[in-house]
Amino acid sequence: MGEKVSGNLMIIGGNEDKEGECLILKEFFKLAGGREARIVLITTASEFPRELGDIYRTLFLDFGARTAAVLYIDDRESANDLHLTEDIDQATGVFFTGGDQLRLTSILGGSQVDAAIRRCYQQGNIIAGTSAGASVMSDTMIVEGDSNESAQKSTLAMAHGMGLLEEVVIDQHFAQRGRINRLLSAVAQNPFVLGIGIDEDTALVVSDNATGKVIGSKTVTIVDGKHIIHSNISESNLHDPLAITNIRLHILPSGFGFDLKRRMPFTCNS
Amino acid sequence: MGEKVSGNLMIIGGNEDKEGECLILKEFFKLAGGREARIVLITTASEFPRELGDIYRTLFLDFGARTAAVLYIDDRESANDLHLTEDIDQATGVFFTGGDQLRLTSILGGSQVDAAIRRCYQQGNIIAGTSAGASVMSDTMIVEGDSNESAQKSTLAMAHGMGLLEEVVIDQHFAQRGRINRLLSAVAQNPFVLGIGIDEDTALVVSDNATGKVIGSKTVTIVDGKHIIHSNISESNLHDPLAITNIRLHILPSGFGFDLKRRMPFTCNS
Repeated sequence: MGEKVSGNLMIIGGNEDKEGECLILKEFFKLAGGREARIVLITTASEFPRELGDIYRTLFLDFGARTAAVLYIDDRESANDLHLTEDIDQATGVFFTGGDQLRLTSILGGSQVDAAIRRCYQQGNIIAGTSAGASVMSDTMIVEGDSNESAQKSTLAMAHGMGLLEEVVIDQHFAQRGRINRLLSAVAQNPFVLGIGIDEDTALVVSDNATGKVIGSKTVTIVDGKHIIHSNISESNLHDPLAITNIRLHILPSGFGFDLKRRMPFTCNS
Repeated sequence: MGEKVSGNLMIIGGNEDKEGECLILKEFFKLAGGREARIVLITTASEFPRELGDIYRTLFLDFGARTAAVLYIDDRESANDLHLTEDIDQATGVFFTGGDQLRLTSILGGSQVDAAIRRCYQQGNIIAGTSAGASVMSDTMIVEGDSNESAQKSTLAMAHGMGLLEEVVIDQHFAQRGRINRLLSAVAQNPFVLGIGIDEDTALVVSDNATGKVIGSKTVTIVDGKHIIHSNISESNLHDPLAITNIRLHILPSGFGFDLKRRMPFTCNS
């Protein structure tokens, strides 16, 4: 775990404050370089790419970013447009908006834009994503799954994500949509994978030493399945309830962090 | 833990099957003595005590119970009616329906009927409760709390329950109403207390050796806070998000049980 964390990520649980203190978005702006920030916005996941792009661009420019460009990529052809990759190559921060995570990966996956984002990330720039934009960061992502239902196999549809953070599975709008059991199911499938559930208006800021710090108004839930003793996931039928014992759970608000390599929570000094 | 488990309890998460196989209600009928069962139904929690009483009475009589009497107790006066306590003294099983748990405790608490139920329980008879009837079994019960919200202090209102099972806190309609975070808050307040979240159409059948077995179609969630390392509950403001680390979690379907004394899950042979 963590060998592959080569850059900086901000994983946002959706619905982050855009009208008040904008704590999370301002932190992204700061991490992208503040007044030197060249921000690229990717709205591909959304049904309303232009409206959403405008909102974020205006915010980041208001904060004082040097540039904030919205890349409208709605098909595979534009995902290979070399003009767009130039913008990304010069960016100090990339921000993925919410929407449909499968739209994001199916349009961007394996494209020139995808490659440019990886380059940008590997050079140490910050990559942020909110809601669907958060889910795509892991190597395998949850595409669909019931909320507020008992844990069972059938609550889950998984797909390949962008793999910026490996060996984790990320879920968002976490407490607000009652998603603990679908994250438990994902972890039970392979306890090697760490479950990260992020509430609305909350983010995990992961740095290149594979530690994450929580910011925002709510909590990040960590589901660590490494010590699972019983699990019936391989033998149960699709709609059978799951059995999972000895899950380790951490609920972390701002002021706390998590060491992804050692799987240990910590308190932040600041 | 467990010294005080003197009888047999069936703690049902609400909405148990009453039309199909009736697995949970039939198990109660069996534990109450089958064809020798003298069942007493207490509908005090409900707004519709007569309709609900009729449904359960008809079911238990159809199963073959010797008697099934509904005690209509809607004020403190009837809770001290000695005719009613006679019924309870002869009962082999008591069943609490759902409704409002505070109505149940405020009307029955400290009454002659309350005392008779305790006697019945201490003699080894089965006491069952569904939904609100499940919540009242613990010594401290959750009366009100937000669902699908991040864990915070203010999501919880607690009150004294009937105390048939001590050192636990029970929540019901658990996965279906997204109640994990309010149960985590309750456990964080005093990690000595074991959190038991019971899904709909699911029950934990606790016997006098302080072990519980899961029956029904969904799962029982056990929240064990004994190993909590960080918790900010004593210092946080009402609406601050909670921090809780190192919670141990077990998701147990039918075929699994839990040793309440040793805090260990087990698999059942049957």
